[in-house]
Amino acid sequence: MIFAVAATTQTRKWVEAFRSRAPDLRVDALEDVPNPGDVAWIATWETAPGRFAPLTNLRAVFAMGAGVEKFLGRDDLRDDVALIRLNDAGMAVQMADYALYAALTVLRNFDHYDRDKAGFTWRPLRPRSPSSLRVTVLGLGTLGGFVAARLAERGYTVSGWSRSEKQIPNVRAVHGADSLDRLLAETELLISILPSTPETRNLLDARRLALLPRGAYVVNAGRGDQLDLDALLNLLDNGHLRGAQLDVFPTEPLPATHPAWENPALRITPHAAAFTLIDEAVEQMLDKLARFERGEKVEGLVDRTRCY
Amino acid sequence: MIFAVAATTQTRKWVEAFRSRAPDLRVDALEDVPNPGDVAWIATWETAPGRFAPLTNLRAVFAMGAGVEKFLGRDDLRDDVALIRLNDAGMAVQMADYALYAALTVLRNFDHYDRDKAGFTWRPLRPRSPSSLRVTVLGLGTLGGFVAARLAERGYTVSGWSRSEKQIPNVRAVHGADSLDRLLAETELLISILPSTPETRNLLDARRLALLPRGAYVVNAGRGDQLDLDALLNLLDNGHLRGAQLDVFPTEPLPATHPAWENPALRITPHAAAFTLIDEAVEQMLDKLARFERGEKVEGLVDRTRCY
Repeated sequence: MIFAVAATTQTRKWVEAFRSRAPDLRVDALEDVPNPGDVAWIATWETAPGRFAPLTNLRAVFAMGAGVEKFLGRDDLRDDVALIRLNDAGMAVQMADYALYAALTVLRNFDHYDRDKAGFTWRPLRPRSPSSLRVTVLGLGTLGGFVAARLAERGYTVSGWSRSEKQIPNVRAVHGADSLDRLLAETELLISILPSTPETRNLLDARRLALLPRGAYVVNAGRGDQLDLDALLNLLDNGHLRGAQLDVFPTEPLPATHPAWENPALRITPHAAAFTLIDEAVEQMLDKLARFERGEKVEGLVDRTRCY
Repeated sequence: MIFAVAATTQTRKWVEAFRSRAPDLRVDALEDVPNPGDVAWIATWETAPGRFAPLTNLRAVFAMGAGVEKFLGRDDLRDDVALIRLNDAGMAVQMADYALYAALTVLRNFDHYDRDKAGFTWRPLRPRSPSSLRVTVLGLGTLGGFVAARLAERGYTVSGWSRSEKQIPNVRAVHGADSLDRLLAETELLISILPSTPETRNLLDARRLALLPRGAYVVNAGRGDQLDLDALLNLLDNGHLRGAQLDVFPTEPLPATHPAWENPALRITPHAAAFTLIDEAVEQMLDKLARFERGEKVEGLVDRTRCY
């Protein structure tokens, strides 16, 4: 039985990291496995169509990230193959820093100063205090919950929204679709860290984005299909929204011809809000593998009916 | 005896803040004082030439900031008038966030992404971990010491340099002019928060800036006269330095004709790294005033021979 590895990049590094930590496990790069039927488990982020079809004895897929939508609804993965996602692996701290960067941009007017620079304009602006800024985090899972808690620790006034009820210290947590509209109307910094599910698809449509108060700032580090990018660009152009920091897009890479690149109120990052850190991810996967094979509860085991 | 107030802006707010906290003290805006000889103390940031000459019975000047060089060497302020600066007043937290913004820019490649955006280029770059980044803070006074400690708490590898010996938890503190060259040669993120003194003037000259390793990033939130701006621009243009975030300049406002505005590797902020927060400043000044009048030790009492 082989534990196969197929990363998008650095597959060798992943293989070495697994081997050094689990010398008794047979670990190979998928491309080096002579007989795919020997693969019992795979750690991967590669999901080309048909990819999993030859792995006839596969027991579990360990996804190299937290968002697993591309592993769902596939005809080359049987429903009895366990799908296990990373719950964190250093990504939460990166995500919190990504959100903090946007928060500092807003409080300290770095976006205004960058635009003033283009006009050779010296214009000091009073900063705002963290407690005066009403921040809303959409999604309170491992990543979103951590981001909300970190911002609250730093003194921001933080609300959080999730599908099911959550409790996070110093965060006003609300849940359910009905509460979202009211929450958006009082949100000055909106940070989405939602997974891609049928419920979150196009959640931030033109109507909901327009509910944000004038001057609000939008961060999307969830998935590109949950925000109507054209509607956002319109609200930036007409001055209703102050700016946005987007890490995810409807099509990635964002095509060079897309008008988003030329919008001065938009910061674009190339799906870089949170990278998987190999060493931490490998340790977590090996722990999950052991629990899975012992028949124990595995954190991050995906419930295919919920899509996460 | 009158406590006069002359801020550059918001003088009314300062006066009200003093009056509400010290109802027994007579506080007035300087412009409302009929007889300048009645002014015993003044809180101010206004330093036009001759400004203090009419205040013939002045006992103390409370500077509305931490940098007091513009109050020194004046012929309208006698040496026996106490000069007392703010030691903090919320400025340290602002300064730490200003430095953190630069650190995140470097670790998370926001500067590269902003420039990639101008070329419609999608190019994810691996982030660096805080512990892998060698940060040096120049100046370990109230502000600089706080900045260094905060960055160390967040996991950065922090060194600090100051004129006299200092000790800060988790910060490698060195002092003295001789040690600076060696320190610069291993600094990837240089953050200056030095006061303006004869010793710091032009401290970061062309020779010392060139000691920084290739790809280093420079932050100046101290004073504009301590860094050779032309030399910095050269090192940015020839690619030796990665970028810079400057808050202070040799002439402020930075003239619209200055080439710095057009340098793509430079972030410019208009002396906005740390604003004085009125309420905190007023509380601190009243405490210092009480100590001063009781003949007690006053933190922030400027030693004119040291210039700070």
